[in-house]
Order: sequence, then structure tokens, then C-alpha cells
Amino acid sequence: MNDFVKHARAPGNMVIVGFGSIGQGGLPLILRHIEIKPEQITIITADERGADEAKAYGIRFIQTPLTRDNYQSELDTLIHRGDFLVNLSVDVSSVALIEFCQARGAMYIDTCIEPWAGGYTDPNKPFSARSNYALREKMLALKEKYPNGPTAVVAQGANPGMVSHLVKQALINLQKDILGTDTIPKTREQWGKLAQKLNIEVIHIAERDTQITDKPKQMGEFVNTWSCDGFVSEGSQPAELGWGTHEKHFPKDGGRHESGCDASIYLKRPGATVKVRTWTPNYGHFHGFLITHNEAISIADYFTLRDSGKVIYRPTCHYAYHPCDNAVMSLHEFNGKNFQMQERQRVMRDEIIDGMDELGVLLAGHKKNAYWYGSQLTIQEARELAPFNGPTSLQVTCAVLAGIVWAIENPKAGIVESDEMDFQRNMEVMLPYLGPVIGQYTDWTPLHERGELYEEDVDNDYAWQFKNVRVV
Amino acid sequence: MNDFVKHARAPGNMVIVGFGSIGQGGLPLILRHIEIKPEQITIITADERGADEAKAYGIRFIQTPLTRDNYQSELDTLIHRGDFLVNLSVDVSSVALIEFCQARGAMYIDTCIEPWAGGYTDPNKPFSARSNYALREKMLALKEKYPNGPTAVVAQGANPGMVSHLVKQALINLQKDILGTDTIPKTREQWGKLAQKLNIEVIHIAERDTQITDKPKQMGEFVNTWSCDGFVSEGSQPAELGWGTHEKHFPKDGGRHESGCDASIYLKRPGATVKVRTWTPNYGHFHGFLITHNEAISIADYFTLRDSGKVIYRPTCHYAYHPCDNAVMSLHEFNGKNFQMQERQRVMRDEIIDGMDELGVLLAGHKKNAYWYGSQLTIQEARELAPFNGPTSLQVTCAVLAGIVWAIENPKAGIVESDEMDFQRNMEVMLPYLGPVIGQYTDWTPLHERGELYEEDVDNDYAWQFKNVRVV
Ligand SMILES: NC(=O)c1ccc[n+]([C@@H]2O[C@H](COP(=O)([O-])OP(=O)(O)OC[C@H]3O[C@@H](n4cnc5c(N)ncnc54)[C@H](O)[C@@H]3O)[C@@H](O)[C@H]2O)c1
Ligand SMILES: NC(=O)c1ccc[n+]([C@@H]2O[C@H](COP(=O)([O-])OP(=O)(O)OC[C@H]3O[C@@H](n4cnc5c(N)ncnc54)[C@H](O)[C@@H]3O)[C@@H](O)[C@H]2O)c1
Repeated sequence: MNDFVKHARAPGNMVIVGFGSIGQGGLPLILRHIEIKPEQITIITADERGADEAKAYGIRFIQTPLTRDNYQSELDTLIHRGDFLVNLSVDVSSVALIEFCQARGAMYIDTCIEPWAGGYTDPNKPFSARSNYALREKMLALKEKYPNGPTAVVAQGANPGMVSHLVKQALINLQKDILGTDTIPKTREQWGKLAQKLNIEVIHIAERDTQITDKPKQMGEFVNTWSCDGFVSEGSQPAELGWGTHEKHFPKDGGRHESGCDASIYLKRPGATVKVRTWTPNYGHFHGFLITHNEAISIADYFTLRDSGKVIYRPTCHYAYHPCDNAVMSLHEFNGKNFQMQERQRVMRDEIIDGMDELGVLLAGHKKNAYWYGSQLTIQEARELAPFNGPTSLQVTCAVLAGIVWAIENPKAGIVESDEMDFQRNMEVMLPYLGPVIGQYTDWTPLHERGELYEEDVDNDYAWQFKNVRVV
Repeated sequence: MNDFVKHARAPGNMVIVGFGSIGQGGLPLILRHIEIKPEQITIITADERGADEAKAYGIRFIQTPLTRDNYQSELDTLIHRGDFLVNLSVDVSSVALIEFCQARGAMYIDTCIEPWAGGYTDPNKPFSARSNYALREKMLALKEKYPNGPTAVVAQGANPGMVSHLVKQALINLQKDILGTDTIPKTREQWGKLAQKLNIEVIHIAERDTQITDKPKQMGEFVNTWSCDGFVSEGSQPAELGWGTHEKHFPKDGGRHESGCDASIYLKRPGATVKVRTWTPNYGHFHGFLITHNEAISIADYFTLRDSGKVIYRPTCHYAYHPCDNAVMSLHEFNGKNFQMQERQRVMRDEIIDGMDELGVLLAGHKKNAYWYGSQLTIQEARELAPFNGPTSLQVTCAVLAGIVWAIENPKAGIVESDEMDFQRNMEVMLPYLGPVIGQYTDWTPLHERGELYEEDVDNDYAWQFKNVRVV
């Protein structure tokens, strides 16, 4: 027992699948804020990482990788009606686990929609099939299949996840500053109308991770502040972005999907090679990577407005990620080796000496140009806030916590994306762990200082075109 | 006095202009291997860097930046007939100093053709005028003006400089391995014919600097193993490359110069944004930056064969530079800030904890595919070999030494490029400072592993096309 506020009481047992940086960071928050006993929790994971931590907390630790063939038998005795499966692994199919939980009557949460191992990088699959769009469409199909099932929260980490809640809070803030009103939309359509009214053309998930270590990256080593495998997987997928109705220049290397919601497009190249311009308050403007992410699609889809079936409004939405310097270098080396993963990998945590994860949403195109809203969490503050975490994991794990709380409070919601939950309840649970959460306007646009030294092919009439944002 | 071999005796005084990483590293080698007394040497430089070292060696140290307006008066009392001006500065016009020395009857050496401050980045100048091609053409014009003047060695550092000698040694090695002969060409035409006979299509100056430090780059800091200013200047110039006769795909963003030797082309974008594929023995294949360099033009020009004025053979030649990781990150930040130099700069030297500068030439297109020949100098070995140096500076400073020796031995050669000097004498002077100098064949080509994960637009019939080398 401890002094932290208990947000909810676990109705059954809990199984945590995967115990890497997010699993290890998430466990202490769950024990703090959910009424649950260590004996109720089981960890099932592929390697020994985190075994010491599990032991220290008195949690059962099973080291067995889940596969297509064994997941049902492995989970059979662990997951029953009213239990909670917390999926924080890589290489385990989210859709398979969700369906398993629906059938069992168990609740579920994950931080992104993962396929089975190799699903991201099968060169025999067409681009569209390797995309997050395809993974999400599979999940959406399941949603229809189990309309009133136990709650399964899909893709609720920092991003995807927290950022969907930040977008809503940012819209509320903009509404106040620009329109002078403070109604909180209740339906998806009302949210879309608010975004349209404010003329939000672009939403960047704008992240600058400035964390540094005094252990330099070595040749042939991939270094990151979270899963190296996870980052390389998504960086190897085609770049994807929610494609807004204001866009006038369809990318030459772009493609549309043939079925589904059509909220996003893909580029015929890995996100690890696509750079975009964006802006955060602390770092100013910079080049980030357009790594595909579920939120780029779900947010664009969520705010889409249709008139008799025809799309009349949608913001462009994508990730613009500047990982820590060592990860930028790792990516450079990875690209130079034709997308072959380095032999050695390292997730920085205890060795970090300085820096912050500045992660927020940049809403642009409106009357006041652009507005960033997000978390500026330093390594020092993260360490004070929770054990086994750095800023990068803490922004994820507090969102996992918030998702678990919301699911327990809303146990029959079926399969939901972050965009469909109550953003205020989520913000409430997350806020103590996000460090300063600030909103800041900027007059920066992707046309800022362009073409000064060299002529550049830009659209000078419409600043927030993707054509201007992309670095070529 | 010391035990090192004295290669030559200085006929007069010596003035060293600029005393940054190269100046500081060069002085001990000059004192070791040239018969000259400290009293004969004067340093004139823009800042206090290196003042301690100068004092320790008993060398006069003048802190006065040379400018267009003051250089004649400042040098007036320092440079007379028979003296030697060693230009190791940035921002001081090489052409101005060469002309000054020719008029005075003094010898001269520099490590690249520099313009006055700002000459690289005046956006009002057309691309062609901001190029190294234009700087070299100005130097070539001077060459005609002073045909039998005192020797002025132009652009003799590591690259430009040493690499011109490495190319010749590599050709001799290839000649032996492929043709079974060992004649050493005597004239420029004979060299061109040897390269043509071997079918050298491509010459990369292939460099991988793996030096690392435990002091990570900070936000807003540019970190490099040699001049940050120097690197940013050349990285801001248009990318340039000697354009070979085998090339079938002229770059869409390429441009030709309207007058002069026409050996090279430029791209309408800064080299800091142009990546190319290359290969070195220790690191394997990687992405380097196509930074403009004098040697890309001079080497391509030197090996050009003409038939009644018409060019019938020329290799493609360019730099493919992977600077140290911290510099790659610095460049990424610099590009993200629209080519605005960071506020703080740091040249790593004493803090380097590991790594090597692997710098050589990759000759490709011949019967045995590709051959790298160059220096693999580690930080540990460089420190044993000479004070005030790391591998990066030592590869430059030993070439400066070799150029000075050759000039003293050939005092009436007029203005010469590295390609025009005796490569064997140069190699002899440099070799003790280069660490292992090795030649290695590879079956790597820029088509290696291409198009596996994503389709790519490549020329599968001709591996060594620039189109295949360039990263898009
Ligand atoms: N939404 C977000 O903001 C966000 C942020 C970070 C990570 N993530 C996601 O969270 C997940 C975990 O990230 P991480 O940084 O902790 O990764 P990690 O690489 O540190 O850990 C992955 C864990 O998964 C386990 N695992 C691998 N294969 C498994 C299998 N077959 N069966 C069971 N367990 C298996 C590993 O043993 C390890 O414990 C990833 O899917 C990642 O994409 C999401
Ligand atoms: N060819 C090669 O392989 C090679 C390699 C490295 C450097 N270089 C060239 O060598 C030169 C020096 O490089 P570095 O790494 O020593 O640079 P650095 O920045 O460390 O030092 C430059 C020096 O020039 C001096 N300087 C600047 N402005 C001056 C002025 N107006 N008058 C007199 N001195 C002035 C500075 O005070 C400093 O001492 C640069 O031109 C660089 O491009 C060539």
C-alpha cells in the first residue's frame, strides 16, 4: 500500500505481455494507481529483461515468446472473464490478442497495433499491406464484429495515445483564444466541426527528444530512448500521413489505399528516409522523420467531416519525430546499410545525463497560425516522478495507466481508439507525470527562411501544404 | 634539434597564416622535418587559439585577421624573396595571397582554395560563381599569368592533396594486378591513358571518420574533428563532382559551367543535403555527403583525355564524406535550421576516446570492380606519432609538410596543383604519419542490396552510374 491516489480497482487478474522499456516503466504506475495486488499480475515476455524488477515487486515472470501457434495455449490459463491483458510487446499481433480477449470477456490495452514478427517488412507484400492503415483497418473490422464486447483500448501510449487527448485540449484552447467560446464537443462530428471552424489544416505530432548520454554510439550499434526494434520496424514501413482536404499537391511517390476509410495516404518509401519540417517551443524549427504511426490515420479519420458521403473536411496529420541524437545517427547508419538492423542495440535509460522529451501536437492553419500543445518532460523530472522510467517511457506509461483506468470505468465500450475516449479523464490521470504541459503560439511556418541560399520549389501561396513541409 | 630526418632546408623565413586545428598540428611537423629555426617563423591568425603552443615552441604569434584591405600591409614586412607563406586559415583569399607571393618572389602552400569571408554563401551570386570550380578557374588564370614564378602549391592537404597521390599509387597497383605491368607514367596524358585503359569510371574520395567522444554534442552546438567553419562553408556550397564520360543520366538538378575546363558539374543544392553511397574497408558501405572539394574537379580534369579538343575520357570523381557521428548530427541540425550555423562550435581533439579517420580513394569500374587505397589512422596511433594532432589533422599536416618539402626542392615550378607534383616523393614524406596504408578490393557496388524492401529507380545495366550512387 502507498499514498498515491487509486484511480480504479482491477476487477480480475492482469497479464502484461512484453516487459521492455514500456512494460518496466508501466508496472510501477499500475501498482501505484490501480487497486491490484502483485499476486494478481503475471508478466509473459520473450527475454529476461526486467526479471529483477518483477522479482522486486513480487510479480510472476514467464519467459515465453508468444507466437501465432502458441498464444492461445499460453494465455489459456492466464486470461479469463474480467481479467485485463496489457500488451506492451513487439512482434505479437494486436488483432490476435484483441480477438482472444473479446472471446474470453477480458479487457485489453496496447500502445500500437502490432503484427506478428516480420509483418512490417515483407517485401513480397504490396505497400498498402505493410502499412499501419492496413493494420488499423483489420482492427476496425474487429470492432464491427464485437460491438458491445469488453473494452479494448487500442494504441494508447504517448503517440499514438496521449496525443489524441492533447489535440482535443489544444482545440479547446484555440476555441477560447480565437472564437472566445468554451463549449466542449460531445460527438465526433462536433469535434470535426470545431476543427473545421478553426481551419486546422495541419496537425503535426511534433516531437524533439534531446536526451544525451556520455556513452557515445559505437559503430554497428543502434541506440535509442525506447525500443530499437520498435523504432526500426515502424521506420521500415512506408511513411504514412492523414491527407487533408486543403492539400493541393499529391506527392509523386504517394499512393492511396483501395479500400477502407481512405483518411490517409502512404509514400512508396520507408519513413526512415522521409524528413519533414516542424516546430517545438524549446527547440524551435527542425527536421524530423515522417515515421508512420497509427495516430496519423486515426486523428485524420476522427476529424473527417462528410456531406452525403463526400469528404468535406479533414486535417493533414502526421508524425514529425526527431529522436535523440544517438538515434538519428543510428538511423543514418541503418539507412546507409540498406535498412539492415545493426548487430548491437542499446536502450538508453540510467546512463542519460541530460535532455527532455518534448512531445506535443502542432495545430496549424488557423487565425493565429500555429499552436503547439504538449509535454516538456526532462530526464531529471521523470526520474523524480517514477522509478524505472525516463521521459520517453513515462509519457507512454502514464497514458497506458489512463487507458486502463478508463477501461475499468467503462468496461463494456468494445474496441475503442484513444480518440473515442473521454480526453479529460485521460488528461487528469496523465498530468502528474507529464512535467510542464504548455501551449505556445508561433509564427513559424514551413516557408520560414526557405529559398534564401538556394531556390526551392515551394508553394508560396499556401504555407501549410505538405509539399512545403517535406524536406527534399 | 631532434632526431627526425630533415627533408629540406628552408631558404628563408616562414609565415603561417591561420593557426587552428591544421596550423597547430602542422607546426610540430615543420619543426621536425624542415631545417628551420623558431625565430624564422611567424604566425598570423585571427584568434588566440594556439597561442600557448606557439609560445612553447618560441614562435612569434600575431593576432590580426587578414582582410581584403589589410593583407598587403600586414604581410609587407613579413614576406620577402625566398620566404614561404603557409596558408592554413579560413576566410582569407588564396588567390590574393598567391598573387602577393608571386609578386614578392616567395613560395606558397595552402590546403584548399579559399575566398574572402562570405564568398561561399552569397545568395546573390549564381551557383557557378559560388563553386569551387570558379575558385579553381581563378587560380588557373593566375597560373598562366605567372608561368615560371616561385612555387605555389595549391590545395595540398589530405583532400584535396594527399588523395591525388593516393589515386596515382592506386593506379600503379591496379596496373600491376590487372595488366601485369609496372611502368610509371610521366606525363599527364600518360596518366589519363592508364586510367582509361584500366576503365576507371569512378573515383570516390571515400572517407569514414569514426572518432567518438564521451562529451555528447549539445543542442545548438556544431562538433567536428576539424574546422566547423571550414566544413560548414564547403557544405553550404553547391555540391560538385567531376563528371565522367561514362555517365548516362545527367542529374535533373545539375548544371554545367559556361566557361573553363568543364571537367565538373554542380548540383543546385548545398552539398550538406546530398548523400551518396560509398565504401571503405573497415566500415563497409555507407552513406556519405557529397561535399564539394577541389580534388573532385582537379583529379577529373587531370585524367581527362581529349581527341582534337573533344573529351574522350574522364572519370567521375567526387567526395563521399562521412564525418564523425557528432558532425553528422551537427549537419542534421544545421540543415534543420535552414543552413544557419549553430551558436557554439567545438573541434574535438584531446577529448576523443576512440575511432579512426579512414580516408582513401575508391577506384571503380575496372576488371576487378572496385579498389580502395588509403590511410586507416586511429586516434591512438596519431597521438603516438605527433603532438597537437588527431588522425584528421595529421593526414592533412603531413601532406602540407610533403608539399613544403617538394616546393623547396622544386622552387621554380610556378603555381601547381597536387596532381602535378611527384607523387612518390610526396608519399615518402607522408607515409610515416598515415598509419596503415592499405589497398583492398571489394565486390560492393552501389546496386548492392538495392530495391529489396522498396522498388528503386536504378540503372541495373551500369552499376557505377552517379544515378545509382546518389541517395534520393
Ligand atoms: N504509443 C507509444 O507512444 C509507444 C511508445 C513506445 C513504445 N510503444 C510500443 O510499445 C511496445 C513496447 O515498446 P518497448 O520500448 O517497451 O519495446 P522493447 O523492445 O523495450 O520491449 C519489447 C518487449 O516485448 C517482448 N517481446 C518480444 N517478442 C515477444 C513475443 N513474441 N512474445 C512476448 N513478448 C515479446 C520483449 O521480450 C520485450 O520485453 C512496442 O510495440 C512499441 O511500438 C508505443
Ligand atoms: N585539404 C584538406 O584536407 C583540409 C583538411 C582540413 C582543413 N583544410 C583547410 O584548412 C584550413 C584550416 O582548417 P582548420 O581545421 O585549421 O580551421 P580552424 O577553424 O581550426 O582554424 C582556422 C584558422 O584560421 C584563422 N583565421 C580565420 N580568419 C582569418 C583571417 N581573416 N586571417 C587570418 N587567419 C584567420 C583562425 O583564427 C584559425 O586559426 C581551412 O581552409 C580548411 O578548409 C583542408
